[in-house]
Amino acid sequence: MTAPPPPPPPPEQQDKMRQADNSGIVTGSKPATVSKQYPQSTFNETKVDRDSFYGAIRTIFADSVLKTQLEQLRKQGSYEAFKLQWHPSYDVRPLQGAKARNDGIPPSLFWESDVGKWVEAACYFLMSGEASSHKAEFDAAITELVNMIESAQQPDGYLNIYFTVVDPAGRLKNLRDMHEMYNAGHLLEAALAHYQYTGSRQFLDVMIRNVEFFMKEVGPNEGQIHGYPGHPELELALFRLYAVTRDQRHLEYVRYLLNERGVSRPEYDNFYHHEAKLRDDILNNKVEYQQAHKPIVDQENILGHSVRAFYLLVAAADAGGQLQVAARRLFDQAVRGKMYVTGGFGSEPSFEGFHEYEHVLPQSTAEGGCYAETCASIAAMMTAERFLADKLDGSVRDTLELAFLNAALGGASLDAKAFSYANKMATCCDETAFRKEWFEVCCCPPNLSRTLGLLGGYTWSANVDADNKSISLNVLLLLSATRTIPLGDGVTATVTMKSGMPFQGHTTFEFAAPEGWSWDLHLPSPGYATDVTVSVPTTADNGFLAATLPATASVSLDFNLPVRILASNPAAHDLLTVTRGPIVYVAESVDNVALDERFPHFEGVGLTTTATFTESEETLEGVTVTLLTSASGDFKHLDRWDLNQGYTVAKPATWSPVEDKVTLVPWFARANRGGAGRLRTSFARAA
Amino acid sequence: MTAPPPPPPPPEQQDKMRQADNSGIVTGSKPATVSKQYPQSTFNETKVDRDSFYGAIRTIFADSVLKTQLEQLRKQGSYEAFKLQWHPSYDVRPLQGAKARNDGIPPSLFWESDVGKWVEAACYFLMSGEASSHKAEFDAAITELVNMIESAQQPDGYLNIYFTVVDPAGRLKNLRDMHEMYNAGHLLEAALAHYQYTGSRQFLDVMIRNVEFFMKEVGPNEGQIHGYPGHPELELALFRLYAVTRDQRHLEYVRYLLNERGVSRPEYDNFYHHEAKLRDDILNNKVEYQQAHKPIVDQENILGHSVRAFYLLVAAADAGGQLQVAARRLFDQAVRGKMYVTGGFGSEPSFEGFHEYEHVLPQSTAEGGCYAETCASIAAMMTAERFLADKLDGSVRDTLELAFLNAALGGASLDAKAFSYANKMATCCDETAFRKEWFEVCCCPPNLSRTLGLLGGYTWSANVDADNKSISLNVLLLLSATRTIPLGDGVTATVTMKSGMPFQGHTTFEFAAPEGWSWDLHLPSPGYATDVTVSVPTTADNGFLAATLPATASVSLDFNLPVRILASNPAAHDLLTVTRGPIVYVAESVDNVALDERFPHFEGVGLTTTATFTESEETLEGVTVTLLTSASGDFKHLDRWDLNQGYTVAKPATWSPVEDKVTLVPWFARANRGGAGRLRTSFARAA
Repeated sequence: MTAPPPPPPPPEQQDKMRQADNSGIVTGSKPATVSKQYPQSTFNETKVDRDSFYGAIRTIFADSVLKTQLEQLRKQGSYEAFKLQWHPSYDVRPLQGAKARNDGIPPSLFWESDVGKWVEAACYFLMSGEASSHKAEFDAAITELVNMIESAQQPDGYLNIYFTVVDPAGRLKNLRDMHEMYNAGHLLEAALAHYQYTGSRQFLDVMIRNVEFFMKEVGPNEGQIHGYPGHPELELALFRLYAVTRDQRHLEYVRYLLNERGVSRPEYDNFYHHEAKLRDDILNNKVEYQQAHKPIVDQENILGHSVRAFYLLVAAADAGGQLQVAARRLFDQAVRGKMYVTGGFGSEPSFEGFHEYEHVLPQSTAEGGCYAETCASIAAMMTAERFLADKLDGSVRDTLELAFLNAALGGASLDAKAFSYANKMATCCDETAFRKEWFEVCCCPPNLSRTLGLLGGYTWSANVDADNKSISLNVLLLLSATRTIPLGDGVTATVTMKSGMPFQGHTTFEFAAPEGWSWDLHLPSPGYATDVTVSVPTTADNGFLAATLPATASVSLDFNLPVRILASNPAAHDLLTVTRGPIVYVAESVDNVALDERFPHFEGVGLTTTATFTESEETLEGVTVTLLTSASGDFKHLDRWDLNQGYTVAKPATWSPVEDKVTLVPWFARANRGGAGRLRTSFARAA
Repeated sequence: MTAPPPPPPPPEQQDKMRQADNSGIVTGSKPATVSKQYPQSTFNETKVDRDSFYGAIRTIFADSVLKTQLEQLRKQGSYEAFKLQWHPSYDVRPLQGAKARNDGIPPSLFWESDVGKWVEAACYFLMSGEASSHKAEFDAAITELVNMIESAQQPDGYLNIYFTVVDPAGRLKNLRDMHEMYNAGHLLEAALAHYQYTGSRQFLDVMIRNVEFFMKEVGPNEGQIHGYPGHPELELALFRLYAVTRDQRHLEYVRYLLNERGVSRPEYDNFYHHEAKLRDDILNNKVEYQQAHKPIVDQENILGHSVRAFYLLVAAADAGGQLQVAARRLFDQAVRGKMYVTGGFGSEPSFEGFHEYEHVLPQSTAEGGCYAETCASIAAMMTAERFLADKLDGSVRDTLELAFLNAALGGASLDAKAFSYANKMATCCDETAFRKEWFEVCCCPPNLSRTLGLLGGYTWSANVDADNKSISLNVLLLLSATRTIPLGDGVTATVTMKSGMPFQGHTTFEFAAPEGWSWDLHLPSPGYATDVTVSVPTTADNGFLAATLPATASVSLDFNLPVRILASNPAAHDLLTVTRGPIVYVAESVDNVALDERFPHFEGVGLTTTATFTESEETLEGVTVTLLTSASGDFKHLDRWDLNQGYTVAKPATWSPVEDKVTLVPWFARANRGGAGRLRTSFARAA
């Protein structure tokens, strides 16, 4: 067993270290490396106002969603699985009734990651003092899980349920598909959260031993497997581990994993082909799926599984240098050419991934695809956050907000009982948009929980320059919250933001720092906003508005949020979508029963670019949202075509006005109010 | 070794048997079975006029394409492969540079079928007295191949290059993927043609022994593998074998193969899952790809690989009863909902197959897909022919003609040097529409050759009622040809058809039968034709025009072929296509250089429903075709969008008139005249 690394400093001391280290430079025998602030480590400086839009959403997660998810994990068997007992789902053989996926991967191969994300989410909420009615139960569950995880670890540091219980000989034989390193990444993130929450090293030490196992077995040296994870995740977790351990070997290891990916060696063109050959696996799978077809720095087109792609980009963005340049290039391409208007990613259900070409973004299965996995949008948010930590950019911020408020946030029902994995832009046939209670592979639900748990970390970033007594504050999300910023020696500054976003464009800030300090403020100037005004002088800075403020100050930021009808790039689909501010709107059957009965799924219903809408409010499970209702005739319809019709002699298109006033609901709030469950987000352009 | 079956009657006697058996009923201990006339057995009664459109095309195949293909088979190694020597392409491991496909199937696994189709095609042309300048070479090649094939057969009747040379232990272990039965089907079809051409039983006996091998190893009885071919083909070949051997066991065997497909047994849900388990193959592949997800009679949605689907339908149509009902239901669905306007099938390149949903028919890779394999359209023609042999139906005839004249015929360049496999409706990015010299899996080129070789068999069907001295003639394709119909006892009738089709709607017929005979004629009344007139009284009969004629008669059929702009079902794409008669027209860069330079691939170019066209003629490699040229302004264009543009605030769509007159060429003749090679078949509806 490898000797354990030096212990990380306790959390309090880390905070100080971070604050004292705002230069971001760590010196040592290796090249200087930027020390990042991660939202996961800073989130708890922020208290989100419970009586606000975002607060109400977080309350649903704290009070109900986490509990639902814990129950589902117990029911599924993943909770108990660390006891290393046999479970029927371990049988991957394509037997009648067996739980095997098309790719031969049993769902249980993801179990560590599901549990890990729940532990991580629970730690964040509990650290925030939330979920208080469940605290005893959650604490007990966390303790039991950590104990089971510790006991499941093998003497050599290996830690994986499936390959310990079912297939010990298969260990590390298939890094491409078998998720050993992916699971380790999520457990490591959970361990970091657990260490933060409890101050106990128990779980973190388990995971450091597990990382050391991989460092011994998988690496660049002779006798090691020159591989890398088929599903990235460990990489981004290792960067966060390094921020705690400051162990250069952890940093070197993630650099190895990132740089080795997609490399051809004299013995083989691709590591995944090589390990497949060693397994006598004759399938010559396309490794674009794993973003392993060429080195990251050479990739020009974002391809393959969307979640894998973005998790990889998070780590590449963190790595800096040419890896970050490549990550930004691929992120920009994804946003420009492969993103749904909701901030969803991945049009291809068959591999949960990107179409090869840009602008191929079908709305529904019946129109050629659509997937838009919740996790992909969360991972895109994570990627955007890394870029923004490096350099502010208004368009990247807008994407973070868009993906969060629409594609990601819609991944749970407001009653906390059901979740979505794919988030299709339109239903079709007998599909509905209703969410499901759980999934065999249930990566998305706890991923959304941990994202809500650390929301404060996404809200703003702060850097303290003690020498110049200056606090730099970059506001990324406009919401209602208070942040307490430690300035060292027990002194703090506070900033309180109150915002009507995402529905009203009025936001106020109260800044309070000790005398002699100043604030270097950056406020967002969103692309969707008009008539942006700030109560203090500002200068435009790459999509942000910069102001310097004295220690104590009040600032208000105001803008209008007109309805904007957005057009897609018409290369493959010429579609219009109603938006207002960062919110994307969708027509669903519950509000438009008569229209949906005549045109189920609103097929054949088009929109005019000159449509106007009236606003109304509705409160759903404590969350108040703005609905939009069109004027009569703003939507039009094609004469209902015969579904049994093939090609016909063309007649001039006749779009007839729809007399109905069409009511639209925010995308994230869809499928929460019953009805037939059919919907459509983007409409044909009605002439 | 199983005892050989009773020898079939020699070809002359078969002809008599067929003529004497017009009742279609074969009696025996088994239920009565309709005895079909196959185009492969009747084609040689027809001589296609060399100085006609179809004759000119056949001349290209007879004089040049067959020779090109023979050279390519030699170059590829498939010709020599029956000598059972090692070949580098046999290595299926995913090694650098190795010839392995994504599915792990080496291209050489298809070699028997490629060679078989070439032998079959050469036999048809040689029987027709064509390819005379190559007769000696082709005869020698056929003889050498048949000798090699015979020598490659194993003592037990097994015949497969790969599993004899490379992997003897793999024999019959993977019926789903490994093409042993598929290859047998094509070789059996070749053997039937060879027997017809030479009168020698050499090849046919080899293949009967091979069929007997499968009958012994794969079947319903204890100790047998209860499987069926992953790629249908043997089934339809077995029906044709039965028509020669009249061996009820051959008929029973094909019925077993068809009825067992997709059946759940107590031991397993699906045979392919079962055999995968026996191979320790953990992949739980979707067997929709092989149309094996449920019994054929229960299938409601045509799914999976398009060529496999249609080959299966050919056999199911031949089987009659509920299998035929299911085949017709699936065929009708494919034509209505999953067919490109050219008669192409298969929108999904990733698995060369059908989209799950109807009307998802993207035009290009950049628009979401498009495949339209040449073989799929040939197989659709074959399916249509089986239905028409059973019952005339004008819409089925129209589909046969459409798929043949557009999707299939375009599979070879008119200079006989290059072939297409996928036939995409539009090019994109750096793609061109130019064909390729050969393919690693080259099923399509020789498939097209054999189709042209037996064209006379698709042209019309004849049934002789000797008792009533009546000749029933059903005309399926309008072209210039003469058919000599044996009436028994050496007496014949002739019918000569002269037609301007597919470009001019004037056709004449001269009927000459011995005195006392009459003709029961059915002429097509195509759906695309207007002002249809016949020079004799007719009655409408399900899309055909029926007339009774005396022994000697002249008939003329006339109709107009107006340009028709066809609209797709707008469920997924609202597109317009210019057609005239059975010919689909396409814009390609060579005729429209300036427009294609401004709008490469004609992206952003739309069409109005009121466009008018002028006609002109051009002769390409001896084939005269009609081109269409629009008036200025009939096509329109969107303001060129920024390819780097994501979502933008919508403005009213502005379609500006294209000043250029746009020239369109028949789809089959595309990519034959140089230029940039970009094209577009279907256009957005320009308001």
